[in-house]
Amino acid sequence: MEKLYSYASLSAFTRAVFEKIGCTAEHAETATNALLSADLRGIDSHGIARLVGYVRLWEAKRVNATPDIRIIHESPSTATVDGDSGLGLVVAPFAMQVAINKARVAGTGWVAVQNSNHFGIAAYHAMKALDEDMIGIANERLLGTNPICVAIPSGTEPPFVADMATTTAANGKLEILQRKNLEAPSGWIQDKEGQTTHDAHALKTGGALLPLGSDRDHGSHKGYALGSIVDIFSAVLSGANYGPWVPPFPAYVPMPDNQPGKGIGHFFGAMRIDAFRPADDFKQNMDQWLRRFREAKPIDPHEKVLVPGDPERSVEGERLGRGIPLLQPVVDDLTTLGHKLDIFFPKG
Amino acid sequence: MEKLYSYASLSAFTRAVFEKIGCTAEHAETATNALLSADLRGIDSHGIARLVGYVRLWEAKRVNATPDIRIIHESPSTATVDGDSGLGLVVAPFAMQVAINKARVAGTGWVAVQNSNHFGIAAYHAMKALDEDMIGIANERLLGTNPICVAIPSGTEPPFVADMATTTAANGKLEILQRKNLEAPSGWIQDKEGQTTHDAHALKTGGALLPLGSDRDHGSHKGYALGSIVDIFSAVLSGANYGPWVPPFPAYVPMPDNQPGKGIGHFFGAMRIDAFRPADDFKQNMDQWLRRFREAKPIDPHEKVLVPGDPERSVEGERLGRGIPLLQPVVDDLTTLGHKLDIFFPKG
Repeated sequence: MEKLYSYASLSAFTRAVFEKIGCTAEHAETATNALLSADLRGIDSHGIARLVGYVRLWEAKRVNATPDIRIIHESPSTATVDGDSGLGLVVAPFAMQVAINKARVAGTGWVAVQNSNHFGIAAYHAMKALDEDMIGIANERLLGTNPICVAIPSGTEPPFVADMATTTAANGKLEILQRKNLEAPSGWIQDKEGQTTHDAHALKTGGALLPLGSDRDHGSHKGYALGSIVDIFSAVLSGANYGPWVPPFPAYVPMPDNQPGKGIGHFFGAMRIDAFRPADDFKQNMDQWLRRFREAKPIDPHEKVLVPGDPERSVEGERLGRGIPLLQPVVDDLTTLGHKLDIFFPKG
Repeated sequence: MEKLYSYASLSAFTRAVFEKIGCTAEHAETATNALLSADLRGIDSHGIARLVGYVRLWEAKRVNATPDIRIIHESPSTATVDGDSGLGLVVAPFAMQVAINKARVAGTGWVAVQNSNHFGIAAYHAMKALDEDMIGIANERLLGTNPICVAIPSGTEPPFVADMATTTAANGKLEILQRKNLEAPSGWIQDKEGQTTHDAHALKTGGALLPLGSDRDHGSHKGYALGSIVDIFSAVLSGANYGPWVPPFPAYVPMPDNQPGKGIGHFFGAMRIDAFRPADDFKQNMDQWLRRFREAKPIDPHEKVLVPGDPERSVEGERLGRGIPLLQPVVDDLTTLGHKLDIFFPKG
């Protein structure tokens, strides 16, 4: 049973929570917009369901509610940003704006971020570039799924937005199976011995999500390489933590010893289309590209060929209209959080 | 039965062939170095075995042996290059050098290329950045496998070089199965109806290589997205041909009708490490990253955990010493080509 909530009511609650832990009104609004974009786009695992986790990180003093976010190194087309342990939901929009500003002058802008926390969904940040007629790129070193997003503007067609974990399945898909007590398909996870398993709970006993490709015969070395590239761009290039040293999201999990860098890392890019060719020419070709794929003949004649970004956009339209469904455990968590912070959580 | 050839003898033959079709001595050397880097690294499908194909493209007037390669659009960190229908083996090194030059001044350099031809292996071009303490990136819209390469410098450890097709299996792997008359594993290819098949020859009857992930359950939509990104960066951003309009490699296959762009496209990037943080700090962390992964516990205690680039580097060391093995059909092709052009093909 899921209840439906209006975007406005969830947004007001979330803003109030961020303000209560000490964020400025401006930061609270920035963080809320970034966080709830996940619920709107149907990536439920990364949205308001995580609000309690963010508050716990603040309680554990791993998140600084009043960060002094600043550029610590730069060149005409690049910058490195120190997030001062702030919410990634606030640090990332700052960094993406720096990338866009750099691109306005230098053609492209590339920003590595250190000392940050989780930033929600990569697509929210990458898509900021679209209105500027720029390609947007966002990576995060996150929970081992190392997502990457590339957003590409178009003319009259809806844009291309590829937002994906570099593992075969994202964590959120596994959580759905866990809640329903279903087995995981082969090729999604391995147990702690490195053997493939169908146990959807194997991550809690030392297992791991498998890289895209699942096994060597099916290209898992490529998924491993992609995840590695995200790790290196987000964390080694920025001076954040990489590999096994990345700070865990649950506040109760202790920090790894001997961390080589600062906090969690991100990487953002913005590329002005007209730094390569006139934007109108590009958009005309991009529209043709998008139409050619959307109109391709599907294997099953009752289905439509989708372009990256299509499924999330259709969910967003529906949820803005009908409301956002929340599972009962999420509602319970948020109600308890509201009680603790003296903020009313709306009835669905 | 494979014969062994020294790099020097294959290089002299290849240079002579390129000069014979009208390339300048400088272009012939550039093209030879790029082409034979594939044989050295063990990517046999992309090396000297293709020399006959390049000559056929020249005979069909699809390759211009004396191109006027030039920048047609630029910004501080970007450029678009028109390859004037030249060999990709010559156009790509020019474009990668432009990217490196841009990065020296602007921190990063990004070059889209139109009106080119196949450029050999992406790693050869991306790795040009390593000596400059830069990250190198190279993409090509090629035969539907849409390869991407990212090369990342290190300190004392050998560098990270991920060079991969965004399909589950590269064409070269399929060719090996075809020669040995073996079946393809499930998840590599589909037949012309879009159904999975084990027939390693299905590409010749309208089949296609499957994107990394193989099927929807195992993330093939992610491989499709990755291949699409390579296509858009290489071909839509540059003004080259994309999707089904890409010029075919075999000279006997007619050009697609109504091509929206010019020739084949590439995309190159170079990112100066010290545009983000001091290069020595980065290299120290990168060495730790590489060692942490190389020293990870393997599932099979008799194997070693590899980092992208390790297998190709080990082949290169061996082939520089012992020689490069060529299959008899390749030797026959090259001998015939030598007879035709009056150039002696060495005995193995």
